[in-house]
Amino acid sequence: MTNDREDSLAYLEKKRFFDSLMTVYGRKTVLEALQDSSTFIYRLHLAKSNKPAGILDEISTLAKQKGAEIVYHDRQALSRISKNAAQDQGVAADLQLRGYQLYDEFLRNNHAKNYTLLALDGVHNPQNLGMIIRSACAGQIDGILLPQKGNAQIDPLVIKASAGTVFRAPLLRCKDLPEALVDFKKKGTVVCALSSHAPTELKKFTPDAPCIYVLGNETEGVSPVVAKLCNESVRIPMNNGVESLNVAVTAALIAFR
Amino acid sequence: MTNDREDSLAYLEKKRFFDSLMTVYGRKTVLEALQDSSTFIYRLHLAKSNKPAGILDEISTLAKQKGAEIVYHDRQALSRISKNAAQDQGVAADLQLRGYQLYDEFLRNNHAKNYTLLALDGVHNPQNLGMIIRSACAGQIDGILLPQKGNAQIDPLVIKASAGTVFRAPLLRCKDLPEALVDFKKKGTVVCALSSHAPTELKKFTPDAPCIYVLGNETEGVSPVVAKLCNESVRIPMNNGVESLNVAVTAALIAFR
Repeated sequence: MTNDREDSLAYLEKKRFFDSLMTVYGRKTVLEALQDSSTFIYRLHLAKSNKPAGILDEISTLAKQKGAEIVYHDRQALSRISKNAAQDQGVAADLQLRGYQLYDEFLRNNHAKNYTLLALDGVHNPQNLGMIIRSACAGQIDGILLPQKGNAQIDPLVIKASAGTVFRAPLLRCKDLPEALVDFKKKGTVVCALSSHAPTELKKFTPDAPCIYVLGNETEGVSPVVAKLCNESVRIPMNNGVESLNVAVTAALIAFR
Repeated sequence: MTNDREDSLAYLEKKRFFDSLMTVYGRKTVLEALQDSSTFIYRLHLAKSNKPAGILDEISTLAKQKGAEIVYHDRQALSRISKNAAQDQGVAADLQLRGYQLYDEFLRNNHAKNYTLLALDGVHNPQNLGMIIRSACAGQIDGILLPQKGNAQIDPLVIKASAGTVFRAPLLRCKDLPEALVDFKKKGTVVCALSSHAPTELKKFTPDAPCIYVLGNETEGVSPVVAKLCNESVRIPMNNGVESLNVAVTAALIAFR
């Protein structure tokens, strides 16, 4: 029995470790990731079918310098790792990033702190996601709750739009946003939706507890299931009959309040 | 002689009028422009070669309701009007927009007022231009100085990224930015560059005169010739070693100070 339990724990430990890695793909993207001084690389994955190319040599050299394991795969196995055969160009990398972690890890390490987070609820446009990450990373945001479901995921377009800040941004992974929000609320975190109909103005909203600002989908806004979990909502007043702001602009206005 | 002078004046008057029109093209774009209650349309231009289509009927009906002249052209003449044969889809419209004017007109009508303008110095990306217009229109910006040279111009991509706010935004046309800035400076307007190296923080900068904030190119920043004309420069402080913000985000932070 003890052995089984130890095996389970080891499995969970291992799973947590792999869940904490960010896999990126594409030659230019992997090269840029390796050139960023703040990234650590766990494994470099290469397709056996790759033809020799200068950029591949650069990638391999940098990966070795950073102490990565280099693994060669057949094309199919590589596309299972990258999850994007059409764009991986025979290269993927598992990165360990300072700012990239599971949300419950963040919650454990930051209790009783007065953090400010953004949570994304259906941000589909990769350019918007990249811009949100860039602004949040530059501004006063302690983490971006990025659910695996229903949002754009980190891909070369997002990385480009983020101007490379993805590699140092505080990204908090979760599977499902409502579940994560419930966990944060249990610890006393205020969950606040951005909504054009809210009575309170963002500028006048100064929560005295840690707070998560929820940014909704580009056209639909915050989803009903998430809206129900919000205990506050705020709006940004607008002139000239403009009905809404771009979601990345909204994120920036929160990050630079 | 008198007749010559009157002819010249009439010509200049006419030129000013046509310069004050915004020509848009593309079926969906023209339809959306006509559907916006704040737009007036002077002329609708249609290619004689257009095959019957429901959207063309809608466009013509709306144009008539708004009192526009409808003019039919051969394909080549239409593309000289739209200046984009590849994307005009046989339709162009000359719009009269409340907020769209020549910069010297604005200058004449707003002297001694404490306005805040944005000026664009090499913003090439249509999505950025659209987002800047949307944020400026929603926020506290009295005009966007948009030089014809060296910037993206109003096209269907820009209009889409602006979420249609182009039709009501305060857009100030000029040919050449340095020339316009000199004219504004003569009237006591402060010209302020956004620059990551500036000693003063945007938040601490509170000019007691009308002010133009100059936003530079996405990678190069403000051009040297424009930088020389600026009598102030400010920066937005950034965390995590991020070097710059997206230009549309910077515009939004100024618009919602």
